[in-house]
Amino acid sequence: MTENQMLAPAPTAEEQQQLDQLYKDFDAEHLIPLWTEIGDLMPMHPKPQAVPHVWRWNTLLPMARRAGDLVPVGRGGERRAISLANPGLGGRPYATPTLWAAIQYLGGHETAPEHRHSQNAFRFVVEGEGVWTVVNGDPVRMSRGDFLLTPGWNFHGHHNETDQPMAWIDGLDIPFVHYTDAAFFEFGTERVTDESTPDISRSERLWSNPGLRPLSGLDNTASSPIGAYRWEHTDRALREQLLLEDEGHPATVHQGHAAVRFVNPTTGGDVMPTIRAQFHRLRPGVRTPPTREVGSSVYQVFEGRGAIEVNGETHTVEKGDLVVVPSWAEWSLLAETQFDLFQFGDQPIMERLHLNRTYIEGTK
Amino acid sequence: MTENQMLAPAPTAEEQQQLDQLYKDFDAEHLIPLWTEIGDLMPMHPKPQAVPHVWRWNTLLPMARRAGDLVPVGRGGERRAISLANPGLGGRPYATPTLWAAIQYLGGHETAPEHRHSQNAFRFVVEGEGVWTVVNGDPVRMSRGDFLLTPGWNFHGHHNETDQPMAWIDGLDIPFVHYTDAAFFEFGTERVTDESTPDISRSERLWSNPGLRPLSGLDNTASSPIGAYRWEHTDRALREQLLLEDEGHPATVHQGHAAVRFVNPTTGGDVMPTIRAQFHRLRPGVRTPPTREVGSSVYQVFEGRGAIEVNGETHTVEKGDLVVVPSWAEWSLLAETQFDLFQFGDQPIMERLHLNRTYIEGTK
Amino acid sequence: MTENQMLAPAPTAEEQQQLDQLYKDFDAEHLIPLWTEIGDLMPMHPKPQAVPHVWRWNTLLPMARRAGDLVPVGRGGERRAISLANPGLGGRPYATPTLWAAIQYLGGHETAPEHRHSQNAFRFVVEGEGVWTVVNGDPVRMSRGDFLLTPGWNFHGHHNETDQPMAWIDGLDIPFVHYTDAAFFEFGTERVTDESTPDISRSERLWSNPGLRPLSGLDNTASSPIGAYRWEHTDRALREQLLLEDEGHPATVHQGHAAVRFVNPTTGGDVMPTIRAQFHRLRPGVRTPPTREVGSSVYQVFEGRGAIEVNGETHTVEKGDLVVVPSWAEWSLLAETQFDLFQFGDQPIMERLHLNRTYIEGTK
Amino acid sequence: MTENQMLAPAPTAEEQQQLDQLYKDFDAEHLIPLWTEIGDLMPMHPKPQAVPHVWRWNTLLPMARRAGDLVPVGRGGERRAISLANPGLGGRPYATPTLWAAIQYLGGHETAPEHRHSQNAFRFVVEGEGVWTVVNGDPVRMSRGDFLLTPGWNFHGHHNETDQPMAWIDGLDIPFVHYTDAAFFEFGTERVTDESTPDISRSERLWSNPGLRPLSGLDNTASSPIGAYRWEHTDRALREQLLLEDEGHPATVHQGHAAVRFVNPTTGGDVMPTIRAQFHRLRPGVRTPPTREVGSSVYQVFEGRGAIEVNGETHTVEKGDLVVVPSWAEWSLLAETQFDLFQFGDQPIMERLHLNRTYIEGTK
Repeated sequence: MTENQMLAPAPTAEEQQQLDQLYKDFDAEHLIPLWTEIGDLMPMHPKPQAVPHVWRWNTLLPMARRAGDLVPVGRGGERRAISLANPGLGGRPYATPTLWAAIQYLGGHETAPEHRHSQNAFRFVVEGEGVWTVVNGDPVRMSRGDFLLTPGWNFHGHHNETDQPMAWIDGLDIPFVHYTDAAFFEFGTERVTDESTPDISRSERLWSNPGLRPLSGLDNTASSPIGAYRWEHTDRALREQLLLEDEGHPATVHQGHAAVRFVNPTTGGDVMPTIRAQFHRLRPGVRTPPTREVGSSVYQVFEGRGAIEVNGETHTVEKGDLVVVPSWAEWSLLAETQFDLFQFGDQPIMERLHLNRTYIEGTK
Repeated sequence: MTENQMLAPAPTAEEQQQLDQLYKDFDAEHLIPLWTEIGDLMPMHPKPQAVPHVWRWNTLLPMARRAGDLVPVGRGGERRAISLANPGLGGRPYATPTLWAAIQYLGGHETAPEHRHSQNAFRFVVEGEGVWTVVNGDPVRMSRGDFLLTPGWNFHGHHNETDQPMAWIDGLDIPFVHYTDAAFFEFGTERVTDESTPDISRSERLWSNPGLRPLSGLDNTASSPIGAYRWEHTDRALREQLLLEDEGHPATVHQGHAAVRFVNPTTGGDVMPTIRAQFHRLRPGVRTPPTREVGSSVYQVFEGRGAIEVNGETHTVEKGDLVVVPSWAEWSLLAETQFDLFQFGDQPIMERLHLNRTYIEGTK
Repeated sequence: MTENQMLAPAPTAEEQQQLDQLYKDFDAEHLIPLWTEIGDLMPMHPKPQAVPHVWRWNTLLPMARRAGDLVPVGRGGERRAISLANPGLGGRPYATPTLWAAIQYLGGHETAPEHRHSQNAFRFVVEGEGVWTVVNGDPVRMSRGDFLLTPGWNFHGHHNETDQPMAWIDGLDIPFVHYTDAAFFEFGTERVTDESTPDISRSERLWSNPGLRPLSGLDNTASSPIGAYRWEHTDRALREQLLLEDEGHPATVHQGHAAVRFVNPTTGGDVMPTIRAQFHRLRPGVRTPPTREVGSSVYQVFEGRGAIEVNGETHTVEKGDLVVVPSWAEWSLLAETQFDLFQFGDQPIMERLHLNRTYIEGTK
Repeated sequence: MTENQMLAPAPTAEEQQQLDQLYKDFDAEHLIPLWTEIGDLMPMHPKPQAVPHVWRWNTLLPMARRAGDLVPVGRGGERRAISLANPGLGGRPYATPTLWAAIQYLGGHETAPEHRHSQNAFRFVVEGEGVWTVVNGDPVRMSRGDFLLTPGWNFHGHHNETDQPMAWIDGLDIPFVHYTDAAFFEFGTERVTDESTPDISRSERLWSNPGLRPLSGLDNTASSPIGAYRWEHTDRALREQLLLEDEGHPATVHQGHAAVRFVNPTTGGDVMPTIRAQFHRLRPGVRTPPTREVGSSVYQVFEGRGAIEVNGETHTVEKGDLVVVPSWAEWSLLAETQFDLFQFGDQPIMERLHLNRTYIEGTK
């Protein structure tokens, strides 16, 4: 017996027969009663089909290499990307109902051709170098620790300048955009439109100057104009938060837990309308307060060892491992060593639609 | 051969074997390659599974009556609501991927018990009277042409004051909230908390004064505080637009097409964060320009005869008939007589997430 | 000795001589030291030069009539308006540093020619009828209790359709726009562009439908598109608030004190960017809690008898009387009978620039 | 005869006598007619009393030194600041009607005591070093090229760590806050609350990381949380814009004219609600297009030689010189050498109140 169930006297045989006929007639007319569905449709609290799950970097990377040997990259398939398929989501290539997460692999001197799409995309580099992603003609170097943006409807391709392959993580809102029937796609050039390999992209030169906005860029944009958020800045920001905490000043989000959100400098808000991206650093031994929030997240360990506890189960993780935290799951981070994690999620969707809700143990 | 397909020499037998093994290994590790999925996942333009479909009032209402005879209303099933199940959506009770639309039926002197949920809800009355919906303790009369709101997390129940049954249309964002795992639900009282039957609700007395905001209500709210948008106001607004057009002044949205959006008076924006609601009146003979937009809609004819053309197919409709228009379908309204239609859709989701796009024939 | 004064040993005679020379040299170079000015420039709390003051309708109206006999209305002087000159503001025609308030008088069959200007303007009618103000070609009837808008840069003129003169109150941000050097002005036609005399303006027909926004007007506007806020709506809104209070529901701003703000329906915010307008109704015997706020206001009694207490002084007032309340003055309203007051002020300036601050006795 | 003047037959002697009496009676009742004032009050376009004017650094600095010898700094006078008094503003210490600009001078080992006030303040350093400004307990080093913030109601004091005096420019909205009667002031400690002399303030360590927002700072703030915008960042941003231009990419605001706005990273908007601050770099030989805008500005040359043309008059300027540009004056910058200028103005006031208007020669 489900949580929500109609309480009424059992129908007579005749009533049951009429009811059966009614349900058949509903079916013929493409109608479905609420009263038989409400327990599943409208639960007491979110009951995601997506489950918490861990993908190991040690498994992912070798498989990506095998794909590199067997599967060409080019027009048609577009990208040699292998997506995390949440075991609860019925074999769809979805990390969570809204988010796509994949390892992408590009062999030496390979090019992933240019295209553009409504879907918002980013890349995060847990190790390696040598690839430039070219966004609307602006070549952006990809290096360890960098967070790189390709907001919706920007042309982009990747090319590997070196003899060595490189792999990284892609994050997109593919499932959400698919679900909402909002997807557009357009092919671009076969090779990237600019094959130069500058250290710093033009977008960074214009926009990554703290607190300084070019007068040529006074119109706000839906997504961040910064093509790359560099590791040196992220690392310094986190280090400074912990130093400030040491000096007795408010700076960290919890004791021993430094964290930054990647933001759009034209608004101070999330980098893209559907995706939040954050970076966490925990001191050894720190455990964050158990938290639930509406919206799903994917974590990737960048450095260090620790665990993610989700719904009471502890998952020990290390560099490169990816963990999915479904909506309203109770989660906590535990650091064994200094523990650096990249996180992305769909919380901007929830906030913009006023569906967000958060519960943090020990607060009101 | 699909639109997106990897172009490469056919693999050798050995390569094919290795590839088969790789795909098996992917599967075992909950991984799915992009290159086999991209054509479906990332189409050139939206390719909704939902299909255009018409439900006839003449079919719906008798079935609702049969349900009234056979199915009690009360705690558990909560509501005697029968939802439109889009034939393209695999038997889910969804009008579109994001929207729920149902006919709700309440017999004489019946009560639908109080509850609240995250899902945003409204009701629209195409005919009948005698029911009061009680929203957070405020009894709101339901009458022909009225548009009534129950934004997320407001307690609400309905009770029928008369001997006669009444039926109306419910619209909610149930599919969207289910999909995003954002649903919360709470039971309230068995009977409505206020059984009085005022003509005008307290919410209207406070908030339905044009351009006047109570000083006790200066904080903006995510959803409209107005409980009922009355037919007399909607009708007058539409009539005045057509009269102004007759007098040679800009007022209508197209020649011969008057239209209003129901809005939240604290912001001027949509009534609820996920749902847009509008009302249209066409002069006899008018045909609106063919239009595509990202986001799905449901139309209900309120009065008059005409047609909705969707993706080249013409559906003749009359009072009470409901039509679903999926995302990016090309649609046009055609009026035979004066033609009044209520419309609701998920466009606020698209706009808030910058996924909106519109194409209107004859404009840029 | 002022509040702020340099504390230092008295200078020697030689130092004094050098100081005198320095001050002379400052003067020659257009320089002024802060240390001699700070007490006036940067006081502990606002010390307005404007003073609380009452102008009596019984005085204003006869004087306006005399002006009607002696001073023609027409191009050049533009309007037969007589402004309240705050006794503290040195003979400038300013009610407060930011606000202009005047009685305007138009004889039978007279016309005030069309013009437009940056300054935002409104009219409030305490008695009389027979004049139409024509705003961008839209004739707006002026009647007792109506609040009428002419936001910046809209052409407008007035014409009196009757044999009888009519007088009303004008409110503008003339002092503020003059002070900030933001004033533009343009002459229009000698006679109003539309001499028809409809009961209801086109702006009202389009925009004064509660919660209903025309699809032809989806772009937000800096100022309200409503040309007239009619007394019948204001009166009903206030009456309903008091009735709701009687019934035990939250509705009034204080016990026995109903109040509405006139707002822009496209945003829910103030009618114009620089001017707030509100209407108050107090039950007999009610006294509002003593309040201070940054920003200045002008009150006009619409009906009833009572008093305004400002900075400890009680001013008994009745129909038509105008009272100025300077910034940060402590004020309270006291009702002898039912007491209806119109109020306008510059608070939107303070709020938009984050200079607002409010103190209400008995609250935190 | 003014632009706006009542056109009417000359009054008879009797009428003139009655008119004279009316004007006397107006005066007695604190009333002023519009028709005699309108030409001044409501001009065709802004006619500022403030005039364009240049103050020379070579004059200012020696005078500040003399004040340093004669006038102690401390509680009462609070600051040894000498303000620019616009020659058109009748001896008030106002650079423009809304803006205060002053040279502040602090001798070796002197301290300017802590206080706070509603007025928004910044400092800009054209030369020198050795002083730390302490803002809410956070010591902020002041060095050449730095732009430093003290938004309203933050406690702040300054102390000079060295044997050498230091001078810099203060900019505040004192005239505006005085005019609008919005000023509050509070004394703090006699000495600064933290006498340490870190290279980088805590505010910078938390907030000056490009595109990175601390999770401990997710609430937007009315003013920027960054205490210091460092020259190295400003210089690099400008240099990169010119290099990008050299490389053929859009980056500069006009050909040869690089420019950045200092912004609040929580919103992307101006650093403080009432003050805009920008930095310009012109290539040698560049002349910016003649421009008019509502709102006033003060420019200070940081490096190089050139001219500012205002209302047709050319003012040759060099390092440290200050120029006032009143509202709606036509101005243009002309670079002889590479020409670096700091600028601040009141344009946020105009934009937030929808009083802004700009005219740039050669554009629409």
